[in-house]
Amino acid sequence: MGKEGRPIITLTTDFGEGHYVGALKGAILDVCPDASIVDITHNVASHDILEGAFNLLCCYSYFPAGTVHLAVVDPGVGSDRRGIVVATEKYSFVGPDNGLFSFIFERETVHRVFSVESEKYLRKPVAPTFHGRDVFAPVAAWLVRQTEPEAFGPEITDFVQSATLQVEKKEPDRLEGEVVYVDRFGNIITSITPEKVSELLRQSGSPRFLVNGRKISRHHKFYAEAPPEELFSLVGSSGYYEISVAGRQAADILEVKRGDKVQLEMD
Amino acid sequence: MGKEGRPIITLTTDFGEGHYVGALKGAILDVCPDASIVDITHNVASHDILEGAFNLLCCYSYFPAGTVHLAVVDPGVGSDRRGIVVATEKYSFVGPDNGLFSFIFERETVHRVFSVESEKYLRKPVAPTFHGRDVFAPVAAWLVRQTEPEAFGPEITDFVQSATLQVEKKEPDRLEGEVVYVDRFGNIITSITPEKVSELLRQSGSPRFLVNGRKISRHHKFYAEAPPEELFSLVGSSGYYEISVAGRQAADILEVKRGDKVQLEMD
Amino acid sequence: MGKEGRPIITLTTDFGEGHYVGALKGAILDVCPDASIVDITHNVASHDILEGAFNLLCCYSYFPAGTVHLAVVDPGVGSDRRGIVVATEKYSFVGPDNGLFSFIFERETVHRVFSVESEKYLRKPVAPTFHGRDVFAPVAAWLVRQTEPEAFGPEITDFVQSATLQVEKKEPDRLEGEVVYVDRFGNIITSITPEKVSELLRQSGSPRFLVNGRKISRHHKFYAEAPPEELFSLVGSSGYYEISVAGRQAADILEVKRGDKVQLEMD
Repeated sequence: MGKEGRPIITLTTDFGEGHYVGALKGAILDVCPDASIVDITHNVASHDILEGAFNLLCCYSYFPAGTVHLAVVDPGVGSDRRGIVVATEKYSFVGPDNGLFSFIFERETVHRVFSVESEKYLRKPVAPTFHGRDVFAPVAAWLVRQTEPEAFGPEITDFVQSATLQVEKKEPDRLEGEVVYVDRFGNIITSITPEKVSELLRQSGSPRFLVNGRKISRHHKFYAEAPPEELFSLVGSSGYYEISVAGRQAADILEVKRGDKVQLEMD
Repeated sequence: MGKEGRPIITLTTDFGEGHYVGALKGAILDVCPDASIVDITHNVASHDILEGAFNLLCCYSYFPAGTVHLAVVDPGVGSDRRGIVVATEKYSFVGPDNGLFSFIFERETVHRVFSVESEKYLRKPVAPTFHGRDVFAPVAAWLVRQTEPEAFGPEITDFVQSATLQVEKKEPDRLEGEVVYVDRFGNIITSITPEKVSELLRQSGSPRFLVNGRKISRHHKFYAEAPPEELFSLVGSSGYYEISVAGRQAADILEVKRGDKVQLEMD
Repeated sequence: MGKEGRPIITLTTDFGEGHYVGALKGAILDVCPDASIVDITHNVASHDILEGAFNLLCCYSYFPAGTVHLAVVDPGVGSDRRGIVVATEKYSFVGPDNGLFSFIFERETVHRVFSVESEKYLRKPVAPTFHGRDVFAPVAAWLVRQTEPEAFGPEITDFVQSATLQVEKKEPDRLEGEVVYVDRFGNIITSITPEKVSELLRQSGSPRFLVNGRKISRHHKFYAEAPPEELFSLVGSSGYYEISVAGRQAADILEVKRGDKVQLEMD
């Protein structure tokens, strides 16, 4: 429940646009017609759990306390993978237990996880191909109607925590991270944060990146600080180092894609 | 009006994103600032009435009673095609009288249809190129403000009911249906339901499909049940048989598009 | 504040879908959980200020009085370009001072402009790469919570008014305009209005266009009036002349893009 009483449910899915999104929203409103449904994205690449997880990571914490974050990237729907409710200090999360909330477990030190087992709160019959509509939507709606997370099923500790933002120390003065996201502007967002650099390396100074054979040694505070065509790094709005180029798509120029390795040294 | 009093209007259009969507939403809120506007999709293929109709069919019934479904796929805007309000037991529908609500007429046995003729509820002047903004948006907004459908114009019975989900019995043991939709995951949704099979064929058992020269004889209950690369059929979340393949786009592999014929026999 | 008390904030950005949109919405709801957030578009071409400005121009005036229009197309974020609040008789506008509101200044004769300088209303720390989330979102949310525009900073008069819809009289009987937008249907929207024609030319009658070497001399009132394949002009729903062709994309046939010149004579 939002702090002034309006229930907020956010949506992060790989459904694309169309009737799957419509049906999920209808199923929420059928339980809680007063819910304020907020689209984060429905364009996560099909079945790409890591991309869904990263999108959620970068925005969940800006919402008011009481927001329920519903996320569905669910290649295993209908199998014995569980559905879960994650309760943290300020938020609840609802979706499949397939690693989609891995970053939440990492970031939110206080959390409890419940397996969705009670049939009481589900749409019936539950279609084995669309738990978004028949399981997660009604559960999210009952959550913003103040149903306790315990009501949906037993607490569990063996939930899936697969995805992680890889950063490794490769040499005394070098870190290896990876590309976790390419945004619409072609900015290449890496898994490395300034905090991680301080923790793992002794050197401080200005970062120098090696990406797909190209050295990027300029660093700026904001995009417009760079001259046209210059490749540079900066700390992006979610706290990660990213590689960018003014007026063009850095990801195209460097021919990188998600999962590619990047190297960082400090000058 | 939603069951707890919050008015809900859903939108299904072929406008793409941009100012047409913005203007339509503005025109709704100008009449009913309290409306909860729910995007179903604005990405129906341009002027594709059947795709719009199918998207609406697959999700309208999940919304709470009182929801107004506004749909605009309207190649004939400005001509003498009528605008209509369709009133069913639980919902109202607003849009052009061009077949967009064909499936609703089929599915909702109790319905009344009104021709929008009273100018009282429209934005003036009505642009001959944008009835979505000047006719359908205000009509939808007045409907959620409890205006009776009779107020907009006379009841009619000669409304357009063109689109239909084709299923034909071709031989004693064979049905011919068609591809009605390809979703974002490349799943091929057909016009055939298990109910139709029971009605038209004597055989029961497991379905065998013939699609573009390829036989598909495996059937599963959910996607993750199938091994990688296997083409299979399943009953999708909207109740129609669909053809799928784990981890890839079935529509690409089979090179099918909307309107292509599919054959079904029962083993 | 909407006329019946519900606060409405519209969004026009070049963020695409994903976590930037999510974070911006979260930052609004954190200040005003009751806000009704209305997506106009997040698909403005990256950094294309003119396209953002034109989208806003074509739909802002349909919203109820009190609506706050938040727009972010912001290549200069983090530099010394200012953030502004524009107050008109019915609306407020919030975003970067880079020309994005040029058409609003042209159209709304009564307006006051304030530079966002008070840190009191911002999220802290303000990321130098994402003022949408840390500056404009909270300012918009405080505006719908009835904070006076004066509270955000001093009134200014040297705001940027760059973008303009070019129309020039080239010969006594000929106007030159430009392509300002190509919509999803391939309609080519020009900068010329019937009012501008009356003001600049003596001739009245039916318009004849010259676009990329092709003469377009047919004029219609609505799209469906034209026979298939015929190129024609009409006055679109936003009041501008546009070039269209039934059932196909006029922009593809004529190979035009935004900024291309078009000529008009009256018959």
